[in-house]
Amino acid sequence: MASLRIREAKEGDCADILRLVRELAEYEKLSDQVTISEEALRADGFGENPFYHCLVAEILPAPGELQGPRVVGYGLYYFIYSTWKGRSIYLEDIYVTPEYRGQGIGSKIIKRVAEVALDKGCSQFRLAVLDWNKRAMDLYKALGAQDLTEAEGWHSFRFEGEAMREMAGR
Amino acid sequence: MASLRIREAKEGDCADILRLVRELAEYEKLSDQVTISEEALRADGFGENPFYHCLVAEILPAPGELQGPRVVGYGLYYFIYSTWKGRSIYLEDIYVTPEYRGQGIGSKIIKRVAEVALDKGCSQFRLAVLDWNKRAMDLYKALGAQDLTEAEGWHSFRFEGEAMREMAGR
Repeated sequence: MASLRIREAKEGDCADILRLVRELAEYEKLSDQVTISEEALRADGFGENPFYHCLVAEILPAPGELQGPRVVGYGLYYFIYSTWKGRSIYLEDIYVTPEYRGQGIGSKIIKRVAEVALDKGCSQFRLAVLDWNKRAMDLYKALGAQDLTEAEGWHSFRFEGEAMREMAGR
Repeated sequence: MASLRIREAKEGDCADILRLVRELAEYEKLSDQVTISEEALRADGFGENPFYHCLVAEILPAPGELQGPRVVGYGLYYFIYSTWKGRSIYLEDIYVTPEYRGQGIGSKIIKRVAEVALDKGCSQFRLAVLDWNKRAMDLYKALGAQDLTEAEGWHSFRFEGEAMREMAGR
């Protein structure tokens, strides 16, 4: 039988990661916003001071199976900083491709991120979810997360290129 | 006349930064959540691989004034990563002490963060605001930010220590 492995991504995984990034954005109905390239993912995640870290969920072939390992999910995170609590981790993306859902792969990725967070001395672990994605919201709540937008009223704001250039007078 | 300077924070500013972090948390009605120490701010912001960067707004004394420079505001940020857009910046805190508000100091700090973002090749600049803080929301919108919670439904979630340990089985 095929088995699952969660491991750190290597530079050679970037094509698979980009494929899944696009699938996730499509699922989120926001795929027009994806402009990143495989080259940027390689340069930014696998240099001396990486901008992000990534875990991949891989299905290993059963003995005798001709197909190689398949990357079917990923969790991409980085370290952030809370002025209330100090070192923290942020899970930017977590995704499992549809045909592999319902097997607990997402939970395994999240648990691995929690282990990394604890190993690195982080006191909290944040992420963002779309309000219509009840399945994800319910999973995070069941795992003990608090919805800070609901509980405290936090709204997420974003400036993009033009607004930044205008502010900087460029 | 006293003049204003926005500059990068030094390790010796950590006592002032902590004082303002506490003032901001009080303003946000969430001050029970602040557990950070001056020592943690020093260690995490001023080592070899800093977890955060900080700008301070300082009032310089007029010639002949006996009082030294006073730190009256700060903006604390770090670099994050968008799988849609690549390198990004996150403004974790921005604060100006009440008696110095209404003079554009907050806008100057934000503009400086936008300059840093552009210099570092960031394609976006994110931050979070409490929904009752209309003054801040209006400022960010006037500067060109989009409220992603309102526009797309993003909710911010957080796991804290106990939930992380439970997930990691520790």
